[in-house]
Amino acid sequence: MFHHTKKLQFEAKPEQPDPVYARKLQELIGGAWGEMTVTMQYLFQGWNCRMEGKYKDLIMDIATEEIGHVEMLATMVARLLEGAPATETTRAVQDPVMAAVMGGMDPQQAIVGGGGALPNDSQGVPWNGRYVIASGNLLADFRANVAAEAQGRLQTARLYNMTDDPGVKEMLKFNLARDTYHQNMWLAAIEQLKADGIEGTLAPNALFDEEHREHATSLWNLSEGNDSAQGRWAQGTGPDGDHEMGIVENPEPLGGPAAGPPPDPKLFATYDGSEQPRDPRLSGAKGMVGKLKEGMS
Amino acid sequence: MFHHTKKLQFEAKPEQPDPVYARKLQELIGGAWGEMTVTMQYLFQGWNCRMEGKYKDLIMDIATEEIGHVEMLATMVARLLEGAPATETTRAVQDPVMAAVMGGMDPQQAIVGGGGALPNDSQGVPWNGRYVIASGNLLADFRANVAAEAQGRLQTARLYNMTDDPGVKEMLKFNLARDTYHQNMWLAAIEQLKADGIEGTLAPNALFDEEHREHATSLWNLSEGNDSAQGRWAQGTGPDGDHEMGIVENPEPLGGPAAGPPPDPKLFATYDGSEQPRDPRLSGAKGMVGKLKEGMS
Amino acid sequence: MFHHTKKLQFEAKPEQPDPVYARKLQELIGGAWGEMTVTMQYLFQGWNCRMEGKYKDLIMDIATEEIGHVEMLATMVARLLEGAPATETTRAVQDPVMAAVMGGMDPQQAIVGGGGALPNDSQGVPWNGRYVIASGNLLADFRANVAAEAQGRLQTARLYNMTDDPGVKEMLKFNLARDTYHQNMWLAAIEQLKADGIEGTLAPNALFDEEHREHATSLWNLSEGNDSAQGRWAQGTGPDGDHEMGIVENPEPLGGPAAGPPPDPKLFATYDGSEQPRDPRLSGAKGMVGKLKEGMS
Amino acid sequence: MFHHTKKLQFEAKPEQPDPVYARKLQELIGGAWGEMTVTMQYLFQGWNCRMEGKYKDLIMDIATEEIGHVEMLATMVARLLEGAPATETTRAVQDPVMAAVMGGMDPQQAIVGGGGALPNDSQGVPWNGRYVIASGNLLADFRANVAAEAQGRLQTARLYNMTDDPGVKEMLKFNLARDTYHQNMWLAAIEQLKADGIEGTLAPNALFDEEHREHATSLWNLSEGNDSAQGRWAQGTGPDGDHEMGIVENPEPLGGPAAGPPPDPKLFATYDGSEQPRDPRLSGAKGMVGKLKEGMS
Amino acid sequence: MFHHTKKLQFEAKPEQPDPVYARKLQELIGGAWGEMTVTMQYLFQGWNCRMEGKYKDLIMDIATEEIGHVEMLATMVARLLEGAPATETTRAVQDPVMAAVMGGMDPQQAIVGGGGALPNDSQGVPWNGRYVIASGNLLADFRANVAAEAQGRLQTARLYNMTDDPGVKEMLKFNLARDTYHQNMWLAAIEQLKADGIEGTLAPNALFDEEHREHATSLWNLSEGNDSAQGRWAQGTGPDGDHEMGIVENPEPLGGPAAGPPPDPKLFATYDGSEQPRDPRLSGAKGMVGKLKEGMS
Amino acid sequence: MFHHTKKLQFEAKPEQPDPVYARKLQELIGGAWGEMTVTMQYLFQGWNCRMEGKYKDLIMDIATEEIGHVEMLATMVARLLEGAPATETTRAVQDPVMAAVMGGMDPQQAIVGGGGALPNDSQGVPWNGRYVIASGNLLADFRANVAAEAQGRLQTARLYNMTDDPGVKEMLKFNLARDTYHQNMWLAAIEQLKADGIEGTLAPNALFDEEHREHATSLWNLSEGNDSAQGRWAQGTGPDGDHEMGIVENPEPLGGPAAGPPPDPKLFATYDGSEQPRDPRLSGAKGMVGKLKEGMS
Repeated sequence: MFHHTKKLQFEAKPEQPDPVYARKLQELIGGAWGEMTVTMQYLFQGWNCRMEGKYKDLIMDIATEEIGHVEMLATMVARLLEGAPATETTRAVQDPVMAAVMGGMDPQQAIVGGGGALPNDSQGVPWNGRYVIASGNLLADFRANVAAEAQGRLQTARLYNMTDDPGVKEMLKFNLARDTYHQNMWLAAIEQLKADGIEGTLAPNALFDEEHREHATSLWNLSEGNDSAQGRWAQGTGPDGDHEMGIVENPEPLGGPAAGPPPDPKLFATYDGSEQPRDPRLSGAKGMVGKLKEGMS
Repeated sequence: MFHHTKKLQFEAKPEQPDPVYARKLQELIGGAWGEMTVTMQYLFQGWNCRMEGKYKDLIMDIATEEIGHVEMLATMVARLLEGAPATETTRAVQDPVMAAVMGGMDPQQAIVGGGGALPNDSQGVPWNGRYVIASGNLLADFRANVAAEAQGRLQTARLYNMTDDPGVKEMLKFNLARDTYHQNMWLAAIEQLKADGIEGTLAPNALFDEEHREHATSLWNLSEGNDSAQGRWAQGTGPDGDHEMGIVENPEPLGGPAAGPPPDPKLFATYDGSEQPRDPRLSGAKGMVGKLKEGMS
Repeated sequence: MFHHTKKLQFEAKPEQPDPVYARKLQELIGGAWGEMTVTMQYLFQGWNCRMEGKYKDLIMDIATEEIGHVEMLATMVARLLEGAPATETTRAVQDPVMAAVMGGMDPQQAIVGGGGALPNDSQGVPWNGRYVIASGNLLADFRANVAAEAQGRLQTARLYNMTDDPGVKEMLKFNLARDTYHQNMWLAAIEQLKADGIEGTLAPNALFDEEHREHATSLWNLSEGNDSAQGRWAQGTGPDGDHEMGIVENPEPLGGPAAGPPPDPKLFATYDGSEQPRDPRLSGAKGMVGKLKEGMS
Repeated sequence: MFHHTKKLQFEAKPEQPDPVYARKLQELIGGAWGEMTVTMQYLFQGWNCRMEGKYKDLIMDIATEEIGHVEMLATMVARLLEGAPATETTRAVQDPVMAAVMGGMDPQQAIVGGGGALPNDSQGVPWNGRYVIASGNLLADFRANVAAEAQGRLQTARLYNMTDDPGVKEMLKFNLARDTYHQNMWLAAIEQLKADGIEGTLAPNALFDEEHREHATSLWNLSEGNDSAQGRWAQGTGPDGDHEMGIVENPEPLGGPAAGPPPDPKLFATYDGSEQPRDPRLSGAKGMVGKLKEGMS
Repeated sequence: MFHHTKKLQFEAKPEQPDPVYARKLQELIGGAWGEMTVTMQYLFQGWNCRMEGKYKDLIMDIATEEIGHVEMLATMVARLLEGAPATETTRAVQDPVMAAVMGGMDPQQAIVGGGGALPNDSQGVPWNGRYVIASGNLLADFRANVAAEAQGRLQTARLYNMTDDPGVKEMLKFNLARDTYHQNMWLAAIEQLKADGIEGTLAPNALFDEEHREHATSLWNLSEGNDSAQGRWAQGTGPDGDHEMGIVENPEPLGGPAAGPPPDPKLFATYDGSEQPRDPRLSGAKGMVGKLKEGMS
Repeated sequence: MFHHTKKLQFEAKPEQPDPVYARKLQELIGGAWGEMTVTMQYLFQGWNCRMEGKYKDLIMDIATEEIGHVEMLATMVARLLEGAPATETTRAVQDPVMAAVMGGMDPQQAIVGGGGALPNDSQGVPWNGRYVIASGNLLADFRANVAAEAQGRLQTARLYNMTDDPGVKEMLKFNLARDTYHQNMWLAAIEQLKADGIEGTLAPNALFDEEHREHATSLWNLSEGNDSAQGRWAQGTGPDGDHEMGIVENPEPLGGPAAGPPPDPKLFATYDGSEQPRDPRLSGAKGMVGKLKEGMS
């Protein structure tokens, strides 16, 4: 269960309105790597975490913080839109810079949102749940979290360079700092998982004996040129301390032809009948079902 | 430019058809972390890479390999669907296990694909371009690549446990191995970026002086309980070797009220007029435009 | 079955072209609350209505009208795009206002639609079927219809303030009037459902005895401050004439910890084994299936 | 800013696992009318509300409650999936009821979520931001909120009839009750808006003089049969107390032909040249730009 | 403007309910090639058609027919769902075939639609506006229409083979016939466009002199093996009667390296500085703007 | 399996940057008819093709070429963005043409892509897998391929008219030529299918005896006016050489009322009980299941 306080985690007051920038900030709200993503990602990771204790508590701490980040950004967007020429007509605007501002605005912030933020990115595409990763495997998910905070800090840094407004920059300095901490934090959490003996370097920590180990050690040189042979990834032992790393300079396919089986005639795939069905039991409906069931039992 | 050979990178032959499993394999083709994602992600990263040399060559090597992985999986799906009871009628099927198989199948593999794979995930949702990350910042992107390979290996491992078919398992052993190598490889590439002095631990390697350093060091304890104080992330120096890490046990909001400005009357947001517009210039359309332009010039 | 007449329900002739406005009008065509939504929403409601008679006839009357509204708007968009500088090159345009117009246009109206309307909203996002609600419960659906007409009239009113063109305004005056009638009409239809004794105030008119009545009467004060205690919703009897309404000033959680069960080891969720599976039957695959089947039979 | 307590708002413990039902419950989490929708809808409405005081406080109270509802449902889903046959192979399952259960499960809850809930609906489609309405106009938005709670209670009631599990039913009895209160509450809030003189019956409370009043009063009988003439909506005064209501029995189109203008030749729309461009200024690129600019200035 | 008659274009009465088939039929309603697509595609093509006369009349005839096809299918779905075990609990169902039926049903048809059709495809993915093509070029669009009717008839034929119900088959025999006529019709319309001298064989009928004619005549053999040299497409004159057709057996790239320019340092793309910006004017922000403006003016 | 060469299929060097045009070019990358679509469409068609030989080889030749087309366009976009004013602030820009350029740019190319191309269309909507058609029926798919190349060439031709840059035009001249060849090629492939006796004129080549032949021959005149009677589609024999073609001038519905069955009371559809369930067995849950099972067995 959650509680809300009316105050913002950090101040979000621009000195001046800037409706073009208000559109760009939507990327940090509803973009693939925006605050809605980390909010929902951490919430679902926390709810799906199967161990009570420090990991779950950590995830829920950050998840709860992120809801407040959406709040800060939504408030900033509303303030940047104050006095926006949203209802000026194209015809009335003689001033060319003003005309340009109108062209660069997000029309939905006015038509749909009445001058407020929307759960969209900077191109107006709505946020969606496929941005969320919550697999239950904490190593795999913390890797995704590091990536999310890295992309988030990168986009914030780019947006920091797109404004001169001291108030906006002040808020972004806070956001940048939190993204710095959160990157460090998820990296530390990965170290902690290893220190606790719960996870290793690679996810999942399983099936290393089952997999074809001989194919777990080399780069396939499938793009011409061999510059890639010069990297750390093509020599020595991998970061997991277990697998050798090398390169296959002239890789050949290991499999056979990429051919599909003869089609089911009732589905009308184009077929010349040149190949016989590989199994006589497949030649009729009864047979198809028979073979399938045999496979199953 | 690309070339194609007719043979598969690795063999993809099931011993028996299994249409229910053919649906599940769609997750590895068109899911958020499937092979279409890594194909397109690495292609766009390679095309957007601004440095000729070993990094770009590496990325293009792997990108080119991944197209072939979609090919392997698509071929496997077609073979698993051989003899599927796709055109049996519900009414005709008296056998309860067969009826259950039909319920668990992906109806579009028959109706839309004619017995073949589709660019969808296991729930039929189409793959989309927002799954791709190619930011131009190699550290941030390699973090995303490690995450992608970790989630990919995790899902492959789960699917490995959902079949008994020796042919399917044989292919998945190859896929698992490649995901092992690729995780190691992207981790090594992150080490290489640091060794080359191009990137650091956190992305982007910039604005550390500008950001509010005092907020870059602590966990905010916003979920009740203090279990999270026990982790590596709340003590010592961060993995970047630069920032201290601690915890704010009872965090208070640093900002003011989350209040929006008075609305533009022409947008018909509900308003009681209790607050005066903060700036008299905002009370009319002329004034709004005036203030905005002043902010701009 | 449907018939079409070549004439528009109402005239749709702008005095002048205005390609920037043509983009904004897309919101009324393919936006979440645009005419495509009400068209499809009312069609599906009508087709799914299980009672012949006045309700079904009403829904089909309005559904059929709405197809014609999409037609009016699509025609208007094509006319607003007449003479648009869609094929001028950026380089050739020296006039700054013209340049701004080009920046504010929807590039797909030219590249994809050849100078015509598209089934998209004003940000280019395609209309989709999840905007439609047709639940079979007429009260719940008429509530959604009132909301749709209210949002539709609101967006139309905003767009009315964004143009000076007498021809466009003339058409919008018709649209506003129809939205006025349709709001009144769906509100009247809700009254009629009650008068006919088919539905009540709340949907669905069922399970009031089964639900926990003690939790059907109060606001939980989960956001700091108690301003919300001053409203009609926190005192007296509810609009349904049956439930008292109050407030829980300091709400406490009623449930236990939000903890998940121990994970299935074959799915590789991170787990430290600190909690024993709560039921010994869950410790192996056989046991899992056993418990599940027992639950089922 | 938000805080989190580790306990659930209400208990969420099933007596038995039921993975098929776990899939259906996804509709209440990530469906168009699920708890993610009301969470985000109320959050954005609250953040975009321009009046401090009882309305904003009310909206934030409910928004904060709804986050906890997602939490309850996600926890319930994880518990319903305990012991699910997610990693059984099709081949191994001889029991037909178990096979049917496997066919009815959501494969992504295992492959993607590791046995947990996902931000999707019951068909696996991800939640998206276009489900949210936050227009700034409180009457229009409260209408949408009544609709959301009505659809939510309706879907909950249907799901209540799809389970026999006393633990699940216990939680749903709480959810039903909250939806009852929330419907009453938003209806009361609409009454309050009128009592406060801020809004009327129809949204927005504006442009009634500008719109074509003669078209704001009648049903157009566009679907054959005149059953619809019998309803409350075709007689007397509308619920707004202002507009008469009637019917146009044999409606004729009021507009002219739905014809588009001659196309821009550089966009290659098919054209026979039979119609001359209506304005000589449109015959060349210069002319097109000229006319457009004239319209603008 | 449109009118509606209460009767169906053709009868849609199944002999027996079949809820599993009701799910499959959704593909013909809201699938990429379902009736909603052709409805909206033809409506937008008609509204965007710039020539009054036989083509526009034809398109609107068919568009209007297709709305009625959605109506037939939606009615059929509701009837197939009569008596569906939508509200039976998993636990109560002991009969394995019934359990399998429940697994194969679309849960949203009950939970969301109350036992009716939805604007979705057979996997529950909502229909969307990007399925529509209405480019204004009639040849290009009629090609798309032939494709749509071919895919539509193909899917209908597959579904015809998935049922034994005489009533369902009766309706599908009508649908198949209409798809036969519509394929023939759009093919005839392409012939008519040529006969009228409005369009040719290839779209658009322009820029044949500007394009690099030497690259308009040959297949590039980029997939190993030369089977493709045996086809009609690699010899003689093309169907347009104008271009020779051949094959490039060992194609070599014609362009230079796929290298991007040095990045903007303020966007933090990873860069080693090894390449100098190609133009000194690009080394600073001023210079960048300068170069861009020069390009523009 | 695939290989990559570092060189582009054709050169892609603009003379000058043009960030507004860089946005428009996204349509050719990630639009519904862009190069990502034909890449994935042909790959899936090739992988799903059931006949080894010239058709499969052809499809894979073209599929492999198309990957290289995405590469050319992505490279062009990066070069057009060189020196783009992506990090200029709105405030700093006094030059109105520069301001207009900024308004017309795609903000995500900077914020998300760091100055590179994205897998989106020109409105920022991500590419998705529903654009792909690969049905297994080669005639139906080749029809879709002709349509794709026609729309692709049409959009390319429009974009050709939107730039003056000789370098961009040079690349587009190559693209136009390839689209010319590919249209001819797929048309020739359709001829080849017929010449080989594998497919006919209409798809699928089946069920012509089963379908209602009397409805396979006429246009239904459902839009007022009889201009459509003048076309080739309303007289003589169809292009398939088999079906007569005519017109039904005053079409009447052939079916009965579009009425749904009485609803399942447990789903709470609104119902007045006026119609008795048509079958007494439907009055209770047992009965419903009974009827359904009877239908099935």
